[in-house]
Amino acid sequence: MPDPGSSPQQSSTPAAAARAAAAPADEAESGEDALLTLPGPPSFPSPFPAVRETAQEIPGSAPVTESAPAHRAVPESAPVPVPAPGRDDGTGGETTARGGEPNSRCTEEDAAAARHARQASSVLERILCGPSGPGTSSLRPGRREVSPACGVSEGSSVFGASDPPAQGEPVPGLYYHPVPEPDAARVGEVSRRIKRWAVDEVQAYPPEWEEEFDGFSVGRYMVACHPDAPTIEHLMVATRLMVAENAVDDCYCEDHGGSPIGLGSRLLLAHTALDPLHTTGEYEAEWVESLQSDAPRRAYRSAMEYFVRKASPSQADRYRHDMSRLHLGYLAEAAWAQAEHVPEVWEYLAMRQFNNFRPCPTITDTVGGYELPADLHARPAVQRVIALAGNATTLVNDLYSYTKELKSPGTHLNLPVVIAEREGLSEKDAYLKAVEVHNDLMHTFEAEAAALAAACPVPSVLRFLRGVAAWVDGNHYWHQTNTYRYSLPDFW
Amino acid sequence: MPDPGSSPQQSSTPAAAARAAAAPADEAESGEDALLTLPGPPSFPSPFPAVRETAQEIPGSAPVTESAPAHRAVPESAPVPVPAPGRDDGTGGETTARGGEPNSRCTEEDAAAARHARQASSVLERILCGPSGPGTSSLRPGRREVSPACGVSEGSSVFGASDPPAQGEPVPGLYYHPVPEPDAARVGEVSRRIKRWAVDEVQAYPPEWEEEFDGFSVGRYMVACHPDAPTIEHLMVATRLMVAENAVDDCYCEDHGGSPIGLGSRLLLAHTALDPLHTTGEYEAEWVESLQSDAPRRAYRSAMEYFVRKASPSQADRYRHDMSRLHLGYLAEAAWAQAEHVPEVWEYLAMRQFNNFRPCPTITDTVGGYELPADLHARPAVQRVIALAGNATTLVNDLYSYTKELKSPGTHLNLPVVIAEREGLSEKDAYLKAVEVHNDLMHTFEAEAAALAAACPVPSVLRFLRGVAAWVDGNHYWHQTNTYRYSLPDFW
Repeated sequence: MPDPGSSPQQSSTPAAAARAAAAPADEAESGEDALLTLPGPPSFPSPFPAVRETAQEIPGSAPVTESAPAHRAVPESAPVPVPAPGRDDGTGGETTARGGEPNSRCTEEDAAAARHARQASSVLERILCGPSGPGTSSLRPGRREVSPACGVSEGSSVFGASDPPAQGEPVPGLYYHPVPEPDAARVGEVSRRIKRWAVDEVQAYPPEWEEEFDGFSVGRYMVACHPDAPTIEHLMVATRLMVAENAVDDCYCEDHGGSPIGLGSRLLLAHTALDPLHTTGEYEAEWVESLQSDAPRRAYRSAMEYFVRKASPSQADRYRHDMSRLHLGYLAEAAWAQAEHVPEVWEYLAMRQFNNFRPCPTITDTVGGYELPADLHARPAVQRVIALAGNATTLVNDLYSYTKELKSPGTHLNLPVVIAEREGLSEKDAYLKAVEVHNDLMHTFEAEAAALAAACPVPSVLRFLRGVAAWVDGNHYWHQTNTYRYSLPDFW
Repeated sequence: MPDPGSSPQQSSTPAAAARAAAAPADEAESGEDALLTLPGPPSFPSPFPAVRETAQEIPGSAPVTESAPAHRAVPESAPVPVPAPGRDDGTGGETTARGGEPNSRCTEEDAAAARHARQASSVLERILCGPSGPGTSSLRPGRREVSPACGVSEGSSVFGASDPPAQGEPVPGLYYHPVPEPDAARVGEVSRRIKRWAVDEVQAYPPEWEEEFDGFSVGRYMVACHPDAPTIEHLMVATRLMVAENAVDDCYCEDHGGSPIGLGSRLLLAHTALDPLHTTGEYEAEWVESLQSDAPRRAYRSAMEYFVRKASPSQADRYRHDMSRLHLGYLAEAAWAQAEHVPEVWEYLAMRQFNNFRPCPTITDTVGGYELPADLHARPAVQRVIALAGNATTLVNDLYSYTKELKSPGTHLNLPVVIAEREGLSEKDAYLKAVEVHNDLMHTFEAEAAALAAACPVPSVLRFLRGVAAWVDGNHYWHQTNTYRYSLPDFW
């Protein structure tokens, strides 16, 4: 995982008095959610008009719904069925996604069609980038509108003149999309609840790390990345997992006692908190006990328990797979660290596709209260879009954490460092080349996502693609504005 | 992965002359298959009569089909729709599995019902163990009938008096099911084709390892484990993957140059042959080239290429997930090896749930030419059955390879060794306790599978469960009879 949770730069603050033991831990299931629940599920702009206009240029593309008016490029506010929250009881929850969507409409979504579609995807890119047509203001709940929402000038300031200026500057030359400031009430409530969970439920960190935990701003991060979450509890699902992932990274891999030595054992045993052991009664008890034995395992176990209440079995399986990828990535990086080896650039990029934010954007449907069906998620074109998005977001982390990692003890691999070493470039030129690599991946992600949307115009696919794009944008927003953690190098 | 491909005990034989270069590598797609293709898809005994008898005792169990006669315990030969082979063109192939099965019939398949069902599962266990009713002789194509097919006496000889005696003795006291001798014509053809692939297509091993490769008997192994494969090419899908997995294990982890040092890097880069890198054009070329750079990567890449032609995207995703688990397991074991650390027994069992045969039985549907739908595969009860089966098969490997591993340099962890060390038992007592652990897992696997079959009597689920059970039985058969590789300790 990229390291949004590490770096104890200022970790000597005493514990806050607020850590009193009396707070109940069960508010997730209480009625508090109603205070910050959206009035209703967000209505989505119908993708079909835009899709039709594009699809007409795609050889072999599937027919679109007959009710969609032709020759209309701007998405309308015609609502499509959206998920109803609350799958906690195990019954229903999703509507359009599971079982209801005609997968056969995607049979023409092959590589050739995708490449053709890419060339005619400007309208679809607008769909992916965010709401811009009439009647789409409810698409990004919890955000104030900002103009322009898309079509970003590279290196521009995040907020318009009428918005409060965000802290931090974007990396010059970086291709990204600004987002509206996340809703303060949601951020406040998620921040309050996540601290209570971390402190009272799982004891994720000792008192002296409190300032660092606050500086992580994980509530703001997750609200920015999941604008369509129907309730605070949906946001909490993502937020707990993010904190847990960072507890593992910090305590096992990086700053807080982490080490490449023995990491394979630690990560596997922690992974059983996500992907449970099935063994004999005699040995199962010791395994169950082990899940309470350190902060990373307590956090994984509890966060997963909440997650599976909202996720379908296939969504949980998807998350476990992504986490096993993440752990493989940690272990490749650890092997290089142990040998003090700097890999080739392509090898680093391969490792970084695994040690990657991927587990975070791919739960966007669970957090949004719907499901991208497993058979659609598994399609190569969807897998490619997810991988490209994950890789772009992860390189954003490399770029923003560059100076922080330079200050850390030892050599911390990131893309600029590896390019400088392997391609004989100056630190500045290597950094600028890393920006180009990121931009290239972002452009490819958007083109492939647009092509996929054209080839497979199923509502859950379109919503999932928008969710991943929103995560990409929110992730950049968080990195740029987290001046507690990040500062840019002096290359310009 | 358990180590069915390692141990170069007799590896000095010169290369065979048969390694001539002229053989074409495209026979997989040729008409040769017809020679050994089954005359038609096997007809399955209807599980419903038995299910009904059991289901009546399950609180809240789902209704069964009305056409199923009640009070009939013995499975009949009423065929259910079965897959048509040949999904190579990407269109269709499966029939009952994808889209056609009523998943809702499984909504009552929860833990409580499963536990109740387990108590009334003797009939279902018979279904899982193998054909015994009238009209089921076509269930295990390529095998001669053997009696008794199920209801095995522990520690009995594998074959009846009328069958040719198999080589090797079973571990005394081990709970297992004997299987009929695999069809010699199929074994011969798979053996011929796999050697051609290994030698000519992917150069999986140097000439001096030929005897070891032959001693592996992978053709016999896979024919024994996949009795319902409709064609030789379906068997080849499993056989190539098995050889590739063992090439990685041998060359990266174990006997042939393997080491825990740097393993995390090697495994991740090899994993990209299964789960491809998505990066910029500049770096992609070097990655593509890397996939040809050593035997493990050549083998993974090619075997996966053949596999995805037969598998659905969800089946390929499942396999990738299982392989990432396997690689995590390797890395946990490597961490202990590097530190010369003997884990607790439960920790060893957790590692062994990952360093596990699991990727092999879970492709049983692809090899059988049908699909267990992703949403059913992901259900916790199915995941549990798969994990238990994988754990039992893997401990079979620990028991049969015990003396081989004792002869290897260094301490090779296996369950008897870990139990002896951690629980202060003699080698013999530790071995006998390991047998008990295996038997316990086998009994639990069968009980949970029977409960699942009762709770979710969907044809693809039942066939998948039988496929996993067949893999478990075939795996034992191969271990017992592979006297080239294995011999029992002198404890009885």
